[in-house]
Amino acid sequence: MIDEMLSDVAAELVRELGADLVTTDAEEMRPFCRDWHGDVEGIALAVIRPRTTDDVVKVVRLCGRLGLNIVPQGGNTGLVLGATPESEGQVVVSLGRMNRIRTIDAENFSAVVEAGCILSVVKDAVAAEGMFFPLTLGAQGSCQIGGNVSSNAGGINVLRYGMTRELVLGLEVVLPDGEVWSQLSPLRKDNRGIDLKHLFIGAEGTLGIVTAVSLKLAPLPTQKSTALLAVESLEQAVALYRFARTQCCDLLSAFEFMPPEAFGLAKEALPHLELPMAGDHPAYVLMEISGAGLVDISNLMQRFLELCFEQSHLVDGVVASSDSQARTLWLFREGMVEGQAKRGLHLRTDVSVPISRLPSFVSDVEHAVLAELPDAFCIAYGHVGDGNVHFNIHAPKEMEVEHRRAYLLRAKHVIDAAVTRYDGSISAEHGIGRLKQPEFEKLTSPVHLHLLSTVKQAIDPAKLMNNGVQIKATALDRASCSVIA
Amino acid sequence: MIDEMLSDVAAELVRELGADLVTTDAEEMRPFCRDWHGDVEGIALAVIRPRTTDDVVKVVRLCGRLGLNIVPQGGNTGLVLGATPESEGQVVVSLGRMNRIRTIDAENFSAVVEAGCILSVVKDAVAAEGMFFPLTLGAQGSCQIGGNVSSNAGGINVLRYGMTRELVLGLEVVLPDGEVWSQLSPLRKDNRGIDLKHLFIGAEGTLGIVTAVSLKLAPLPTQKSTALLAVESLEQAVALYRFARTQCCDLLSAFEFMPPEAFGLAKEALPHLELPMAGDHPAYVLMEISGAGLVDISNLMQRFLELCFEQSHLVDGVVASSDSQARTLWLFREGMVEGQAKRGLHLRTDVSVPISRLPSFVSDVEHAVLAELPDAFCIAYGHVGDGNVHFNIHAPKEMEVEHRRAYLLRAKHVIDAAVTRYDGSISAEHGIGRLKQPEFEKLTSPVHLHLLSTVKQAIDPAKLMNNGVQIKATALDRASCSVIA
Repeated sequence: MIDEMLSDVAAELVRELGADLVTTDAEEMRPFCRDWHGDVEGIALAVIRPRTTDDVVKVVRLCGRLGLNIVPQGGNTGLVLGATPESEGQVVVSLGRMNRIRTIDAENFSAVVEAGCILSVVKDAVAAEGMFFPLTLGAQGSCQIGGNVSSNAGGINVLRYGMTRELVLGLEVVLPDGEVWSQLSPLRKDNRGIDLKHLFIGAEGTLGIVTAVSLKLAPLPTQKSTALLAVESLEQAVALYRFARTQCCDLLSAFEFMPPEAFGLAKEALPHLELPMAGDHPAYVLMEISGAGLVDISNLMQRFLELCFEQSHLVDGVVASSDSQARTLWLFREGMVEGQAKRGLHLRTDVSVPISRLPSFVSDVEHAVLAELPDAFCIAYGHVGDGNVHFNIHAPKEMEVEHRRAYLLRAKHVIDAAVTRYDGSISAEHGIGRLKQPEFEKLTSPVHLHLLSTVKQAIDPAKLMNNGVQIKATALDRASCSVIA
Repeated sequence: MIDEMLSDVAAELVRELGADLVTTDAEEMRPFCRDWHGDVEGIALAVIRPRTTDDVVKVVRLCGRLGLNIVPQGGNTGLVLGATPESEGQVVVSLGRMNRIRTIDAENFSAVVEAGCILSVVKDAVAAEGMFFPLTLGAQGSCQIGGNVSSNAGGINVLRYGMTRELVLGLEVVLPDGEVWSQLSPLRKDNRGIDLKHLFIGAEGTLGIVTAVSLKLAPLPTQKSTALLAVESLEQAVALYRFARTQCCDLLSAFEFMPPEAFGLAKEALPHLELPMAGDHPAYVLMEISGAGLVDISNLMQRFLELCFEQSHLVDGVVASSDSQARTLWLFREGMVEGQAKRGLHLRTDVSVPISRLPSFVSDVEHAVLAELPDAFCIAYGHVGDGNVHFNIHAPKEMEVEHRRAYLLRAKHVIDAAVTRYDGSISAEHGIGRLKQPEFEKLTSPVHLHLLSTVKQAIDPAKLMNNGVQIKATALDRASCSVIA
């Protein structure tokens, strides 16, 4: 009976939208239902792939009428199950076919692109005109601009250029009632009342479907200089960050910290990597400055490091003298992550605190975790300039996999508690999605949750959009499921 | 009868809140009821001046109970009647007594301040610790941070540092239901779902009362270089802007354009001003670069101008060789505005279009205005980097004052129509307030207006906050007035 009704609804989708836009084939649907890590196999009634904003309008209206819940999806590279469907009452709306670059305006430092454009394609297209779209992430070859906006993606250049939010000049959004809210004009300054686009940035598709984006560009940095620095402590790294921002005139583009274990872990993943400096130091910093035109970036780095040595801001340092050497320095950062992956299941976190509190936070968390789990291996690294720490925990090597999950969950509770004590964030850049929803709800003030629900209820009263993300799935979800079942 | 009820309500305010917080004295109330220009004398039942967030909570709850509408007010320096009360059913809540700087955190480049702090006081306090709060405006000696946030203030450094929105890390807001929504932790990166603070930035007090703000700071620019440049056209100015941003590595902090009439107007206001360069040029640019530490800003400007001359990017140019010379160059910009003021009543606008379209916009508007009003005097100047033009219109000198208003209104309609054609903004930085509300409503899409009303209705269902600002005063306002009358 349920199957019959489901197939009736699926047939209606195909009839109304055409077989070109809709698939209900399990094999074809699989890549859209599975999460990026491949940990979760979601389920959905159908996957719909619109080609135009008008298609999206039709889809939204039809799903509203049929009582289906919509899961908007970009490149499906999210880390918090924000785009993973979980019921046959849901359809995935994948934006990948809406991939036109509408305009690039060199004199306005802006571009208007459709939501399904792949990030690296946009970066290349604007670079060809001498400009830079600063958003830079590991997934840039797959992730899509609409998803970047909906998850307010971060990445390695946040320190200099901000999160995705700060790179958005305007949006086109299909609202839950099927109306199109469009404000794509790439204005640098527009103060006409409440700026509604911010509702949709970071909303993870809970308030509408982003179909196009007006992007803010920067001049292409044609010069870069990268250095690996050794410091005496995380405190010194934080002080050095302030010194670097001031001395280098805000031309810093990366400032990462790594613990002493970084080299060892990197070598576990990349055994041929040669150590760039001798000795074991308490902490390392990977620093990059960049720019274009008349400022000599390489000379600036040289003079900065001289000044640092003079004033005892660091213990040791090497500067990459070529692009390939810079690449090698970054390999330590990446190898450290890969080395951990090789050790198997471990806890990865993405938390933030004020920069000034990073050192005491890292030390407190380490003590608290070891008090609870004396045999844990803790490793903390991250972006100093963003106050963003990845505080990761490994269970003892000999622990059997089936016990690890509970062990790591205990560590997670300890870290969550510390984040709360430090008035920090349990999600510095990854978002909430379905994965962090329960934790978010537990750790967030009732006033905030109430305000969030109020906004959601006002804009999406029928709960058409991405149920279970950010806000707990409610009675209304069940109602919509009962339409199906 | 009405008077009696009003005085009952006023007496209740005093009884509940204490005479220290409430004044109903007409003389004492006048500076809070009059707008900044002194053009409008508003009316209100009372002026309330809370000392703490708890006071604000009490005020909001009491006004809710009494059916009074709240007009939040900072330094009362706004230009669009956003904080000017207009009925005896309203009370002004002035935040000026909440003026504590709560914390300054040098390593986090942040400060937490109360809403009533005067902008220049905050700037001085952080400068004493080697940091810079970039918001820079004419009114900075009077305006308050809460008002800057509520109006999303702009100013001369937007090009480099963004509007107020981009300088806010967190807020504390008393909501219309009297709950306190607080997220003051100065995190540089926090991606826990929809970022609700953006609802209150630029809301002009229609969704709650901002009581404290967490601010993002930058390194203090200890070096500055200012140049006045002559170019062949506005087109060349726009091209020069792109060249400057690229060559000067985004260290540009101002890039203003002025028309040929600028010098003449400046001399009308400041007769002793000496022309910094010979000849009459079609357009001028006032450019500033700034920074700190190891980049030699003055040398950068020198080499930039050499390159410009080599590549024919400009016709003439002078660089200030001292702070006092830089001050003189800025006097041309300021004198041009004062010179216009001396000519009496004229139309001032604050519009924006994409930077690339500035030249054609300015030329189109000028033609359109002269087609409608052949004897008008048009003058356009503004911030190239923000696409922000002040397109001002003067009636013929001999026209009597009583005819000027209608004349200028005709010009305004012509400019509004052009802004719409160019998909620009009728308020680049000043906001909407009560002044621009009718124009905003007329020129904005129904989808946008509906979304705005939906959000307002959800967060302030009783219409307690600042009626008539951004959204037309509605049936509910009348209901609340009838409680009084």
